[in-house]
Amino acid sequence: MQLEAIYHRSKQNGSYAYDRETVHIRIRTKKDDVTAVDVIAVDKYAFQRTTVSVPMRKFTSDALFDYWEAAYKPPYRRLRYAFRLEDAQEQWYLTERGFRKELPEHYFESFEFPYLNGVDVFEPPTWVKEAVFYQIFPERFANGDKQNDPPNVQPWGGEPKPDNFFGGDLEGVIQHLDHLSELGITAIYFTPVFEATTNHKYDTRDYKKVDPHFGSNEKLKELVAACHARGIRVLLDAVFNHAGRTFPPFVDVLEHGEQSAYKDWFYVHDYPLRVEDGIPTYETFAFEPIMPKLNTEHPEVKQYLLDAARYWIEEVGIDGWRLDVANEVDHQFWREFRQVVKQANPEAYILGEIWHDSMAWLQGDQFDAVMNYPLTDAMLDFFAKETVDAAEFSSLVGTQLAYYPQQATEVAFNLLDSHDTPRLLTQCGGDKRRMKLATLFQFTHPGVPCVYYGNEIGIEGEGDPDCRRCMEWDEEKQDRELFNFYRDVIALRRKHAALRSVGIRFLQAEAGSRVLMYERWSESGERFLIALNAAAKSTVLRTELPLDGKAWRTELASDASIASVGDALTIQLEAYGFAVMKQVADQ
Amino acid sequence: MQLEAIYHRSKQNGSYAYDRETVHIRIRTKKDDVTAVDVIAVDKYAFQRTTVSVPMRKFTSDALFDYWEAAYKPPYRRLRYAFRLEDAQEQWYLTERGFRKELPEHYFESFEFPYLNGVDVFEPPTWVKEAVFYQIFPERFANGDKQNDPPNVQPWGGEPKPDNFFGGDLEGVIQHLDHLSELGITAIYFTPVFEATTNHKYDTRDYKKVDPHFGSNEKLKELVAACHARGIRVLLDAVFNHAGRTFPPFVDVLEHGEQSAYKDWFYVHDYPLRVEDGIPTYETFAFEPIMPKLNTEHPEVKQYLLDAARYWIEEVGIDGWRLDVANEVDHQFWREFRQVVKQANPEAYILGEIWHDSMAWLQGDQFDAVMNYPLTDAMLDFFAKETVDAAEFSSLVGTQLAYYPQQATEVAFNLLDSHDTPRLLTQCGGDKRRMKLATLFQFTHPGVPCVYYGNEIGIEGEGDPDCRRCMEWDEEKQDRELFNFYRDVIALRRKHAALRSVGIRFLQAEAGSRVLMYERWSESGERFLIALNAAAKSTVLRTELPLDGKAWRTELASDASIASVGDALTIQLEAYGFAVMKQVADQ
Repeated sequence: MQLEAIYHRSKQNGSYAYDRETVHIRIRTKKDDVTAVDVIAVDKYAFQRTTVSVPMRKFTSDALFDYWEAAYKPPYRRLRYAFRLEDAQEQWYLTERGFRKELPEHYFESFEFPYLNGVDVFEPPTWVKEAVFYQIFPERFANGDKQNDPPNVQPWGGEPKPDNFFGGDLEGVIQHLDHLSELGITAIYFTPVFEATTNHKYDTRDYKKVDPHFGSNEKLKELVAACHARGIRVLLDAVFNHAGRTFPPFVDVLEHGEQSAYKDWFYVHDYPLRVEDGIPTYETFAFEPIMPKLNTEHPEVKQYLLDAARYWIEEVGIDGWRLDVANEVDHQFWREFRQVVKQANPEAYILGEIWHDSMAWLQGDQFDAVMNYPLTDAMLDFFAKETVDAAEFSSLVGTQLAYYPQQATEVAFNLLDSHDTPRLLTQCGGDKRRMKLATLFQFTHPGVPCVYYGNEIGIEGEGDPDCRRCMEWDEEKQDRELFNFYRDVIALRRKHAALRSVGIRFLQAEAGSRVLMYERWSESGERFLIALNAAAKSTVLRTELPLDGKAWRTELASDASIASVGDALTIQLEAYGFAVMKQVADQ
Repeated sequence: MQLEAIYHRSKQNGSYAYDRETVHIRIRTKKDDVTAVDVIAVDKYAFQRTTVSVPMRKFTSDALFDYWEAAYKPPYRRLRYAFRLEDAQEQWYLTERGFRKELPEHYFESFEFPYLNGVDVFEPPTWVKEAVFYQIFPERFANGDKQNDPPNVQPWGGEPKPDNFFGGDLEGVIQHLDHLSELGITAIYFTPVFEATTNHKYDTRDYKKVDPHFGSNEKLKELVAACHARGIRVLLDAVFNHAGRTFPPFVDVLEHGEQSAYKDWFYVHDYPLRVEDGIPTYETFAFEPIMPKLNTEHPEVKQYLLDAARYWIEEVGIDGWRLDVANEVDHQFWREFRQVVKQANPEAYILGEIWHDSMAWLQGDQFDAVMNYPLTDAMLDFFAKETVDAAEFSSLVGTQLAYYPQQATEVAFNLLDSHDTPRLLTQCGGDKRRMKLATLFQFTHPGVPCVYYGNEIGIEGEGDPDCRRCMEWDEEKQDRELFNFYRDVIALRRKHAALRSVGIRFLQAEAGSRVLMYERWSESGERFLIALNAAAKSTVLRTELPLDGKAWRTELASDASIASVGDALTIQLEAYGFAVMKQVADQ
């Protein structure tokens, strides 16, 4: 047994409350090394009557490791535990003090999850697990009201530039909600809508006012109400890391320097504020002079931003916040933010923009989820860029499934592109078949999928600003075949709990191969088999699955033919073909 | 290179702000496997001008692993990083995405410490690093005022029983502060002093009132002032996990059951409150019916306890709180507690009673330190019980040095015994020589040492209640030789920064051996060499140390003779002998 590979630490994603009764315990071992692991659990004040041995299940793997998990309900909310690890040759116990040949008699050496306190349980809102998101960049979605167009508005559909405007607005969204309903969308994430000077509005002037070119606060209220009437939730973008060049407190500091009453709202290193050799003398987002970093440790700044966070929930009824540049703001601010937001709306979804390991924000005291860019990268590398093979892809995905507590995995925000990246179809070299495979994987993977506006009708685009093209509303120019695919895959996901659950296992993902087969299941016993051929040549997959007198019915497929003989399935997939099969009652 | 052994995750003790400018980065590798590690660090918005390679230093090791650390000051408070690992055969890069033969071109794959925000920096009070603590169990320290004795008070020095009283009080402490000053103590931790029915007072009746048998609130104020006048800080015991049987809100629930306005102050599973088969129908500390667990999620309970926490700081001027059963109280409560306490006294020391891995409480938002029982266990196993050899002891100690951020290690509360364990001398089988070795190690180890009252004059005692014997004030009956040893070892530690720093390295700690030699150093270049022979037979240690034209002067020794020839030292230690040597300017 390779002892050095074995890793466990309590709390975080090692042992955590999954709900108010259940503790999940996890341990990592070297890949294909350990054959069985048990958790030996006790109540520390009642050894004799509470000692149990709970077998662990290998719930994910990657190139180097297997990851094991057990769920246990401690009878008195207290838990001490150790691990028993077994391979063909030997057996080891692991306690907090290290590896032992015998289980120590007294439990001071054990690991501890000391108490399951309800308030500490990380409980993302339940609606999120069922949601299908759609991301809207308001300036480019639809121009519903010509009256509020900015000066020099460009003709709809023109070439997007860093600083041009096309007149998209909230009324435009209201007028096109049918499109979203037809697609099956249940939640929208809007990039910023508050008053600002740019087309992307990430340089806020007024956090409590809808940008006049987008509409009014009343119009936003109307939009949210219209969405809610259709069962669509609404997330707004909280740009709290930095303000904009025209934010009045910042203007005051620009004008009055050290004499400004607002000087501590920002991090100023030298007055007067200026840019030298590309570096502002005050802290900013990146080195962007029009985006001064807010001092979120300052009580007045905190008050101002938390008021805004509460205001839009109470006044307009939004269902959550997406947090821009979330990991550059202090943790203490986000803890208070969570208190304020959840008090205003306990069902609010708090979604941080973090592109990296986000464990520090996903412990129940800060965010519900993050934008799952590590998964984005893996999906793009396999389906679009073709830089990794099936083995490496399944390894990257496998690692991520062990990264966070289960409830964070369930509501992870899974995206393939956004206003910050090239569009999916473009990354797929314009090949719709690869785009569909990536999307199919996204929609059959644990976590919440998000569609970037216009992908569903075939809009392309390189990186910013090209990825922010105007939405195409002329049905003749829309790719309706692609739209139907999105509609079908969304419907499939919404219909079947197995596709939303965390139950996933790769059955085929070989080195050098571009073919994937994986199984999905729900706790209630629903089972799916999904096969994808991400290669330009056809392939034949065979798998032996216990059928329990049941059959596999094809739910969605393209360029696939399936044959079932006894307990074996044979799936022939043409280039970029796929098949989604569900186990059904009758053979 | 054993890749599976390599572990790094950002935040916690993997990458953290040491101060408002410096980030510490750590990585774990298999023991004696990797020969060099560099951190490759960049500012994510300015790759070209900020990429640096920072060599890492192996700062501790244990039986399985080496632990490496680098300190780096990111120029713009933002940090992305990767690792370069090297052994004799090969070189690997580690990014957040895994192991790579080449460093990826773009930095999205790197690890991230996204922003060093001041408010998130974990900054324990600086005075704690210099402190020497003394733990007092007030009922047994000194009876200074016969007027406030409890009924049936026993003659001082009698046999301690779970429920008897000897009349110790706060006036008694005031009268004996000379003893502490002579010893060199700079801080006292008092077990509870608030009104309660038991002799240990862990069953609080009134959190804002000193127990009448101990004195009055005024008397406590007088005691704290007297301590402060001598440069002695005072920590009180916050028993916030549970209240006592006589706590009025609990009495109300006992009397009125579900009709009580206080019913949600506790966790009641069934009314009327009762005990069935040893299990109360309400949650308690352990299964102790007189210690009902407080519902610290309830706003009124929180308010009540936080008021008490603030009250004693503001009214009496205490310097911090020791938190009883700290890990069974919710994290959210402790976060608010920290806010309240640090607002009242930014220099307050918040010390949690946790016997296990405490990483989840030592991230800057909750505690400053925990009672370092894992170190206690290791020290007792080696010096007192003799169940581990020098190799295993140094491995246990080595693991712990990597457990937490450096600032937590610096103020870890290191104890050898307490009111909850048998006394040190008794655990050493009454052998003062072993007791001295353990104490010497405690006082020359990173972290803050605490002496349990009476150890310094030779009091013995098995587990509770025997470990709570009355202090001996008759100098004739005190072990003054032992007292002098404590006084000397305390003075030595207080005089030399190297003995308080985190710079430590084991030079000798062999399997099967009971001999230890280790080096201690401060940042300013002060160096110590400490040799201990924890065996009943004499030993000769030889070590080659570059002397740089300097000599080693013996600062404290027992049964040791030291010879220096060239760059080599020869240290002969008799049974249980020791030598503490300091490098001095002239040969």
